[in-house]
Amino acid sequence: MKNWEKNIRRVIPYTPGEQPNCPDMIKLNTNENPYPPAPGVEKAWGELDVPSLRLYPDPACSLLVNALAKRCGVGEDQVFVGVGSDDVLAMCFQTFFNSKKPVLFPDISYSFYPVWAELFGIPYETTALDEEFRIVKEEFYRENGGIIFPNPNAPTSLLLEQRDVEEIIAHNPDSIVIVDEAYIDFAGAPSAMKLLEKYDNLLVVQTFSKSRSLCGMRVGFAVGSPRLIRYLNDVKYSFNSYTMSLPALTLGAAAVADEAYFQETTRKICATRERSKEALRKLGFVFPEPAANFIFASHPKCDAKALFEALKERRIFVRYFDKPRINQYLRITIGTDAQMEALFGALEELVSKPVFENGY
Amino acid sequence: MKNWEKNIRRVIPYTPGEQPNCPDMIKLNTNENPYPPAPGVEKAWGELDVPSLRLYPDPACSLLVNALAKRCGVGEDQVFVGVGSDDVLAMCFQTFFNSKKPVLFPDISYSFYPVWAELFGIPYETTALDEEFRIVKEEFYRENGGIIFPNPNAPTSLLLEQRDVEEIIAHNPDSIVIVDEAYIDFAGAPSAMKLLEKYDNLLVVQTFSKSRSLCGMRVGFAVGSPRLIRYLNDVKYSFNSYTMSLPALTLGAAAVADEAYFQETTRKICATRERSKEALRKLGFVFPEPAANFIFASHPKCDAKALFEALKERRIFVRYFDKPRINQYLRITIGTDAQMEALFGALEELVSKPVFENGY
Repeated sequence: MKNWEKNIRRVIPYTPGEQPNCPDMIKLNTNENPYPPAPGVEKAWGELDVPSLRLYPDPACSLLVNALAKRCGVGEDQVFVGVGSDDVLAMCFQTFFNSKKPVLFPDISYSFYPVWAELFGIPYETTALDEEFRIVKEEFYRENGGIIFPNPNAPTSLLLEQRDVEEIIAHNPDSIVIVDEAYIDFAGAPSAMKLLEKYDNLLVVQTFSKSRSLCGMRVGFAVGSPRLIRYLNDVKYSFNSYTMSLPALTLGAAAVADEAYFQETTRKICATRERSKEALRKLGFVFPEPAANFIFASHPKCDAKALFEALKERRIFVRYFDKPRINQYLRITIGTDAQMEALFGALEELVSKPVFENGY
Repeated sequence: MKNWEKNIRRVIPYTPGEQPNCPDMIKLNTNENPYPPAPGVEKAWGELDVPSLRLYPDPACSLLVNALAKRCGVGEDQVFVGVGSDDVLAMCFQTFFNSKKPVLFPDISYSFYPVWAELFGIPYETTALDEEFRIVKEEFYRENGGIIFPNPNAPTSLLLEQRDVEEIIAHNPDSIVIVDEAYIDFAGAPSAMKLLEKYDNLLVVQTFSKSRSLCGMRVGFAVGSPRLIRYLNDVKYSFNSYTMSLPALTLGAAAVADEAYFQETTRKICATRERSKEALRKLGFVFPEPAANFIFASHPKCDAKALFEALKERRIFVRYFDKPRINQYLRITIGTDAQMEALFGALEELVSKPVFENGY
């Protein structure tokens, strides 16, 4: 090792999920929306003045912030936007989790939480899910330097009822509690934003990547008390004043504007999910009750990894986690009805083959 | 203060530069390019498949990385891309500057360097420019935990000759040396990239915001040894795997592809700068020899702040820094010939008025 290498920050490299790109593939592995962005997004795209890209975008992101404030029924000083919810969440870890006490998050949860904690040198402890993968609220009633959990949780797809979310917040008046709602629009349940009037230590994070079909544009946001948002902006402006590109601001605002399309596509995905639950049950799969745009399914007679690989050979991509407790599950994104039919056709064939029996 | 506020990271809020947006304004305050992005960028915009925005972009950013590698004559494992060069530089501070020894940068330089150092808790010392604002290479020959300087420097616009850049690197084999070349394309001098073959502790950072007319798209990049780039990617993937949007990747690659347009607009800006030097001298201004797309000018008989305010009233925006040693200077971005003529017309009137005499 050379001397100049000694002071480099070493992290356990996080490997981004597979982004296959074969023709005719069925991509159900990264919880993308099977439907295109709202028609208004395409329109905004066509109307964007390309020459104006020579200018810096608005650092306050007012166009998008105002659209979100209106939609969420909060003040413009209560919204923070970032380059996808990963950017927002990473900023939150950096801004809010500076205690010597451990930050708490579920042991089975979004895999980036421990990565950010390691990156920023934040102590953390995980809270145990129960045997049915449910978040146990009492696990968050211990001393901590902050709390974060996804709701619905990933990769389990399970929703924590709002009264339980509120109890966790109410039990932790001295901590900042972040509810990561990437999938809340598919839950048929209210956002924790409803609780913002009562709790100024609550921050709710959402994304445009799932229910708004804008993964490729990188837009996420947080809603909280003006004080929390100000602290986040202070750190963001110290990092990079212009994180949001002009297209991200204009297309993001156009996506928010089209509430009808958002409702329609979200409803379609939920309907496909309900049909998919039936189909998977018929094939012998079991799964926690899904509240997101994916199902976390296991087959008592088939090895999950073998199924994952066999599906891949058929150009059907789902997500497999080679981790304790969840290594017999597949996380299956809800696609279109046609995509799901193709998946079920392949699974029907596969689960009938004894070669996939894992013997437990 | 509430208990939950105690562990929040407090930073001295960085205030982003003014982004005025009045009709008919002449905007010469943030070193933007007066010309639109290359025609190929508009074409790529028109051809972008909006429905595919529902998918995550390529986390490896291959389209853009490959275009840059080819253009810079380096390997694909030698290029890192980010959300503007501010994102790239912030990642560099976080990744490379973890020594207990101070990082060194010039005392008059890019104002974000001390902001990042504070944000990440990095010790730093500034090196003194000489009386004519020149970087003094010997100032970097002391013990340090890393080195960074812009070349040409900002806001002075002064170029450090390549032999001096090389001497700084050669004197610091145990440090990582970052040369921040946001403005190098206007310098008529080679990039420090030429030195990469000899020094694997060198990292060169550039941006699409100036010579590529793409401020609004947020694209910056670093070129260095494969090892440095790998460390940067490890940290980036741990922060946010998908920082670069699909439009940033495709429009960025399109901008790189049009070398002729790049050469033409860069040449035009340099020609306008040469004419502007003459005009400013005639008006009595003095300035260090400019090598960027801006001139750092002072008038012996006129107060810089008063000039700045008076220009603003006429909707001509330049940049003023209320800081020791440079508070009698204006940083004037090179616009089109017509914009510069309007500026000189206004200045001619202003410098003749005794009210602006500052008496020194």
